[in-house]
Formats: sequence, C-alpha cells, structure tokens
Amino acid sequence: MYMRDLQKILGGDAVGEVNQPLTGVGTIRSATSTQITFLANQRYRSDLSSSRAGAVIVGNADRDLTPLPRLVVANPYACFARVAQLFNPPALYASGVHPAAIIHADAQVAESASVAEYVSIGRGAVIGEGARIGPGCIIGDDVWVGAHTCLVARVTIYARCTIGARGIVHAGAVIGADGFGFAPDFSAGDGGWVKIPQVGRVVIGDDCEIGANTSIDRGAIDDTVVGNDVKIDNQVQVGHNCVIGDHTIISGCVGIAGTSTIGRRVMMGGGSGVIGHLEICDDAIVSAMTLVTKSITEPGMYTGSMPLMKHGDWLRNVVHVRRLGALADAIKNAAGSK
Amino acid sequence: MYMRDLQKILGGDAVGEVNQPLTGVGTIRSATSTQITFLANQRYRSDLSSSRAGAVIVGNADRDLTPLPRLVVANPYACFARVAQLFNPPALYASGVHPAAIIHADAQVAESASVAEYVSIGRGAVIGEGARIGPGCIIGDDVWVGAHTCLVARVTIYARCTIGARGIVHAGAVIGADGFGFAPDFSAGDGGWVKIPQVGRVVIGDDCEIGANTSIDRGAIDDTVVGNDVKIDNQVQVGHNCVIGDHTIISGCVGIAGTSTIGRRVMMGGGSGVIGHLEICDDAIVSAMTLVTKSITEPGMYTGSMPLMKHGDWLRNVVHVRRLGALADAIKNAAGSK
Amino acid sequence: MYMRDLQKILGGDAVGEVNQPLTGVGTIRSATSTQITFLANQRYRSDLSSSRAGAVIVGNADRDLTPLPRLVVANPYACFARVAQLFNPPALYASGVHPAAIIHADAQVAESASVAEYVSIGRGAVIGEGARIGPGCIIGDDVWVGAHTCLVARVTIYARCTIGARGIVHAGAVIGADGFGFAPDFSAGDGGWVKIPQVGRVVIGDDCEIGANTSIDRGAIDDTVVGNDVKIDNQVQVGHNCVIGDHTIISGCVGIAGTSTIGRRVMMGGGSGVIGHLEICDDAIVSAMTLVTKSITEPGMYTGSMPLMKHGDWLRNVVHVRRLGALADAIKNAAGSK
Repeated sequence: MYMRDLQKILGGDAVGEVNQPLTGVGTIRSATSTQITFLANQRYRSDLSSSRAGAVIVGNADRDLTPLPRLVVANPYACFARVAQLFNPPALYASGVHPAAIIHADAQVAESASVAEYVSIGRGAVIGEGARIGPGCIIGDDVWVGAHTCLVARVTIYARCTIGARGIVHAGAVIGADGFGFAPDFSAGDGGWVKIPQVGRVVIGDDCEIGANTSIDRGAIDDTVVGNDVKIDNQVQVGHNCVIGDHTIISGCVGIAGTSTIGRRVMMGGGSGVIGHLEICDDAIVSAMTLVTKSITEPGMYTGSMPLMKHGDWLRNVVHVRRLGALADAIKNAAGSK
Repeated sequence: MYMRDLQKILGGDAVGEVNQPLTGVGTIRSATSTQITFLANQRYRSDLSSSRAGAVIVGNADRDLTPLPRLVVANPYACFARVAQLFNPPALYASGVHPAAIIHADAQVAESASVAEYVSIGRGAVIGEGARIGPGCIIGDDVWVGAHTCLVARVTIYARCTIGARGIVHAGAVIGADGFGFAPDFSAGDGGWVKIPQVGRVVIGDDCEIGANTSIDRGAIDDTVVGNDVKIDNQVQVGHNCVIGDHTIISGCVGIAGTSTIGRRVMMGGGSGVIGHLEICDDAIVSAMTLVTKSITEPGMYTGSMPLMKHGDWLRNVVHVRRLGALADAIKNAAGSK
Repeated sequence: MYMRDLQKILGGDAVGEVNQPLTGVGTIRSATSTQITFLANQRYRSDLSSSRAGAVIVGNADRDLTPLPRLVVANPYACFARVAQLFNPPALYASGVHPAAIIHADAQVAESASVAEYVSIGRGAVIGEGARIGPGCIIGDDVWVGAHTCLVARVTIYARCTIGARGIVHAGAVIGADGFGFAPDFSAGDGGWVKIPQVGRVVIGDDCEIGANTSIDRGAIDDTVVGNDVKIDNQVQVGHNCVIGDHTIISGCVGIAGTSTIGRRVMMGGGSGVIGHLEICDDAIVSAMTLVTKSITEPGMYTGSMPLMKHGDWLRNVVHVRRLGALADAIKNAAGSK
C-alpha cells in the first residue's frame, strides 16, 4: 500500500512523497522505512527527528515538523488506529460448524457464522451473520449473539443473555452468572443464607469489547444492561443490575457492585471500585484504585487513592491518619487560644 | 399459584385477597398485577403506594401499610427469597453422562448425576447423587463432588479437592491450583526461586456458592478449608491454607493471602484484602477496598479506605499525608509554646 | 528414604540419627515421626521442642537447638523446598496425544509431549519435549511452548505468543488477549472508540509460573515481555507492552497497566497496582494494595495503603483527609503567630 492510498481511504492531506510504499505500522522508535508511525502525544515530539519510519501521521499543528512523508489529519491517533486496522485486518474464519461442536437442534446458527471445536450451543440460541464462536465457548439456552461478534475462546454465556453486533469477547469471560444475592435467615437456630434466584439477564449492546476473565452478572429480577461501544478490560467484575452507558471505558481489575448506574463516556481507572446502588454521571473520570462511595453528579475527575511513600515515610506519617480528628481539634484549640 | 398457597408453604399471615393468582416475583417498582413483591428496606416504603404488584410480602410492623394482598412474616426478605425460589426452581438436568464426556474407568458417577459435554473426570473421582457437572468442567483425580452440587460450566477442580452437598460453582472458577509458595535461593550466582510443592487440598463444605472466575488455592502441606454455607462472589482469590468459617460472605474482587483464618459470619466487602497469617474473628465486617493488616479480634465493622474527592481537592489535600508526622509535631510545638 | 540419603542429595551436615526413615514433609506442628520439617522463621523456634517430627532441617545457627535428627544447611527453607520436591515429584503424564484433541496438521508436537482431551492446537504451533498440555487448553496458531512446560488445564494462549521451558501455567490463565487500546474519535456526531489492533506478542521466559485466571495481554505493536523465573500468582492482570524482569514475584490480584517496565527481583504485594508507562527498578518491594503512581528508581520497600480502623474511628478521622490542606495552613498560621 502507498501513502497516496491511505490518503484516499482516510482523508487528510498527504504531504511529501505520496508514493512511499508502506507495509505496516510501528511505534515512533521502532518503525522501519516501510512502516508508518504517528505523533499524537507531544511527549514523543523529540523522537520524531530520529525516527526511521517511512511515513508519519501528524495533527494539523505538526504539519511542518518533519520532512518525512506525512498524513496530516485532525485526529492523528484515531487515524493511526484505522491505518493499523487496514494493515492488520481481523482474523478471518471459514464459515461453518466444526464437527466437534455440539449445537442443539433448536438453535439457529447463521450460515455465514463460524463455530469452532468444543463449542456447546443451547436450545433456542441464535448466532448472527458472520459471528465467530471460538473453541471451548459455552453458549446457554436462548442466548443471542449479534452479527459479526467474535467470542474468541472459552467464553461462557449463560442462558437468555444477549450481546449485540460487532462485539469482541476475550477468553475466559463469563457473561450472565448469578448475581450475588442472599437473604440472611439466622433466626431459626443457626439458620443460614437463602439464595435469591437471579432471573434477570445480561443485555449487551453493539460494538462492545469485553476483556479476558471478566465477569458480568445477570440481574436479580430486572436485567444488567451494558450500552453500545462500551469497552471493558480484563479481570473486571460487574455486579447484578448495573446499567452502563454508551462509550464508557472500564479498565482492568475494576469492581462494580450491584445496582449501580454508570453514565455515558465514563472512564473508570484500573482497580477502581463502585459501591452498590450509586449513580455516576456522564463524562465522569474515576482515577485508578479509587473507591466511589457516593453518587457522582458532576463531570470531572475524581480520586481517592493513597500516595506512594518509602515504607519508612509511610510508617512515620500514616500512623497519624488514625488521630486526624484529635489533630484537627488541637489545631482549633491552638488557633482559638491565641 | 395463589397467595393462599404461598401462605401454606411458607407460613406467616395472609392478609387481604388470598385468592390472588400469582405467576412470579417482581421489584416493588416493576412488579405487575400477577407478581408478588416485598418490602424489607424502609427506603422503598414510599414506593409501595404506587406499586402495581398483585401482592406484597411485608414485616409485622408494616401489616397495615397497604391494601394490597399481603403475606405478613417476621423476615420478609428471606420469605421473598423462598417465594422467588418457588417460582424459579433451579434448572433440571436429565441424569446421565453425555457421550462427549470422558470419564475415567475408576471414577464413580452417581446414576442420578448429570454430566455434560466436554467434561473430563479423573481416576478415583466421586460425583454425588443428583450432582450436575456442566459443559467444559475438568475434574481431577480423586476429587469428591457432593450430592446435588452444580458446577455450572468450565469449572476446574484439581486433584483430591472436595466440595460438599448442594453447592453451586460458577463458570471459570478454579479450585485447588497450587498455592503461591517459593523459597528464595539466590546464593549460588544468580540462583532463583525454588518451588515448594503444594500437596494439601481444598476442602469445601456444604451449601457453598463460588463465583465466576474465582480461585481457591490448595494448601501447601495442610488443607485450605472453606466451611458450610460460605458464599464467595466473582473474581475472588483465596490463598493456600486459609480457613474460612461457616456463613461467611466474601464479595467480588477480594484477595485473601495465604494462611489467614477468617471466622464465622464474617462479611468481606468488595475489593478488600487480607495480609497473610492473620485471624479475623467471627462476625467481623470489613468494608470495601479495606486492607486488613493485623488480626481482628472483636466483632464490628472495620474500614481503611480513602474518601472520594474531586481530583483538584485530592491534589491539594492528600499531598499532606506525606508530611503528617511533621504536621503532628508542629501542632505539639504550637500547643506546648502557648 | 533415609536422612542420610537426603544429606547425600542435598548436602549440608546430617546430625543425629542418619538412619531415620522418612516418608514425607510436614509443618513443624503437624509433622509425624516419619516426616521431616524445617525451621526457617525464628517465630516458630519455640514450637520445635514440642514437634513430633522425625527430623528437621535447620540453619547453621540452630545446629544444636534440638536433639532431633537434623540436616544443617545454609538455607533451610530452600533445602526444605527441595526435599518436598523429592517426596512430591510433579505428576507424570504418558506421552502422546489424546484422541479427543484437535491438532492442526501443520503443528509440531514433540513425541515426548503429552496432550490431553479437548485440547485445540493451531497451525504452526510448536509443543516442546516433555511438555504437558492439559485438558481444555486452547493453543493458537504459531504458539511456541517450551520443553517440559505444563499448561495444567483450560489455559488459553493466543496466536504467536511463546512460553519458555519448565514453566507452569494454571487453569484459566489467558496469555495474549488483545491489549486495551482504543483511540477516541467523538468528532463526527456521536462517534466512538476506534480499536487499535494489538499485533505484538507475549513472550515469556523459562522457569515461570503463571497463576489461575491470570491474564497477560499481547503488545500493541512491540511485545509484552516476561523474563525468566518470574512467578505470577492468581487473578493478576498484566497490560500490553509491559516488560517484567527475571525473578520478579507478583502476588494475587495485582494489576499492571500498559507499557510499564518492572525490574528484576521486584516483589509486588497482593492487590497492588501500577499506573501505565512507569518504571520500577530492580529489587523494589511494593506493599499490598499500594498504587505505584510514579517510577521507582531506588531499591527498597514502598507503601501507600490506608491503615485499618474501627469504622467509628475511620468516620471521625478520615473525614479530615478532605481538609488536610486547610489544616496544614492553620498550623502554619498558628506557628507563625507565636
């Protein structure tokens, strides 16, 4: 492919040698003379002069920053992502059902779908056009998988849950396990926990990506709902009856307790958590390892993590957190006694 | 089913129209005229007057709160859970072994058990009466699965581990992987870590539920022990040689390091953690994202999380955590110099 | 086996009855008269006099602490690990491929390797001498598994990733899922996230152990790299393009965001986290549930966790964290006004 082809497909201005042949993408430091790189983060600006890339995607402001053949666009990072997609199209799978897949007679699998070995598909399930069900996936009864969605491998979807079109679900993800709901009944002697049947579903929109070993629980009575274009990383836990808005991004190791409502375009940092029964408004950003303990009603960034200290400094300082109330009183007294 | 049937099965007082026909359960806001709901949390009290439910389960104090047909009981939440179970019995599986399951000749599978496709059961394993081994489960040698326990799908149980009766284990759970034990031996040149064989088991009691993608490690020499009626949510990690008491509840994303002893009826909040070699007494409650760094010897609630702040407030305030010791000294001096 | 045999194999001094027959290992409290235990932690010193062990491994300083038959060595813990390995050798698997495994015609599986039921091995994959691919593993195209490495069960390795020799990967681990990379493109109307193809690999060295349900993402363009003798516990998330040095130990529930470089012999405590694009130097120790928010350039221990408090104490004290800046100002004023 040539620079001029990229310009035709993706728009922008091709500046410099438009006949530069390109075979792939690379980072600004590792790209070779037949690879195209990009400059989106000004932090890497100084690396550009020493880059051996064959071409570069830059923003309008950086049009004249380099003599390299360049594609000048409004959003160089998004443009780079699209170029990378052109050079690295998703794997193609032959349509059809592997003989070592077990599909219930009452399931519907589109002829253009691809079902791999060791897959189990339950009664009433529907697998859409061009969908891919990778090896070892377990698809429960009445599950609905949208067109062109790819379950990579070893994905489990419990009965009646649905996922929209063009999604990607990575290995080990579990969609629709029982929410964590038990009523205490310790009155009669020892007693114990009474399980509340979890009869809602998980309903996932279009264009979502769900990470490896992530779990999204089904609703207790109503459904757990994930919007469109939601991106969820690995090792995430979404509790029952959560509602997650379109375009929201959830990083790895996040835990969201039940019945929380997360808005649109929210960004949850890695390892952050949400107490149950809260609301987080559109466009909120939650920092890494921050616990959301009350609803967030205004957009912006929210943080609640401890700073990193040398262990000796931590010992000397953090012990006083346990007596901050007394310290505050002492200050008030000192100020008052002046 | 009619209100009067529920009363006969579950006790309590049926007040109002006992011939109300009911087909299921609903939330106080979503229930329809043939569904029964419940009022346990006083927060939802005001929703009751506008509820379109056909009937409601209430506590004794709320007997006269509504004209709806109602079942008056001591513990409305537990009663609701049992009603929901009546309307939503667990899935029934035909007994027998799927032809695409591989069962060692020396394993014992009860005739009433159900073994699904792509299951592997090892030598000497015992599967109890009415148990369900769902698709893709891997059961190691000499594993023991109690009567009526359900491994939903893709559960792995390593050799020699046991789980009692009436349990539920969700997809992706791993019971009995090696504990994390290595001895450093860096003396000879570079050296490295020497693996300590993990030869204990995991022993799980009756009536336990284990969440999706949760892992419970086998003991190093002695066993890892989980009591009866223990409920463990998704994405939880239990280290080797932990002992967890009856009725304890462990929420999602909790991590418990090795050789910790957790008492009975303990509640671990989501994302909380326990350092190894500690004890937590009966009836302790650990808040979400709290790290337990020393043994807890008195019942009650324990917390150690950071409050949520707007990021600007966090920047302004939390920087001072690094100099709390100096602040405390300054206060002492100020007070002393009066 | 006799004490004298252990001494011949492992070195050190055998003191006392060298003909003591031994059948296994035990803890200092649980070992029986035919088991050998060890004393490495001085905390258990007082237990030695009441131990019923048949023999004990001690350090040079403890040579005369007990009349028990004893093996005196420089590193009793590492010696104990090796003795435990002698008594508990890893499971042996018959070489060969189970008929219910599906292996691409263009894959190479060593004759001495063992491939279990319900395994899928892709085109161009290479399985080394003596390797074990346990039940339910999914091995992508062009994956390389080193000699004597054991994938216990239900491990997924995505295309082109490699793992070295003598490794152990536990059930549910996912190696090589897509890194979490999306470019925002919300300019045109609503817009959305543009996926950045993740075309790097995961490259894992020799002698590594990867825990249950852990995930290590493939690189975006360059590779994610895990060195030799790295030990990773359960439920860990390693983001794309991380580089992890030899001998590093990562405890359970750790999350490492993308493009972080972790040195050699680093120890990451349970539940700790690392923000992306940082470096952690050799020999750093990060405490449990500590978030690393900036690069660590000096060896030593680093901590950033909140102390545990009774909930009432937490309420009284931690509220003041939100006004630490004002408190610090008040102190400065009080001191200045003297």
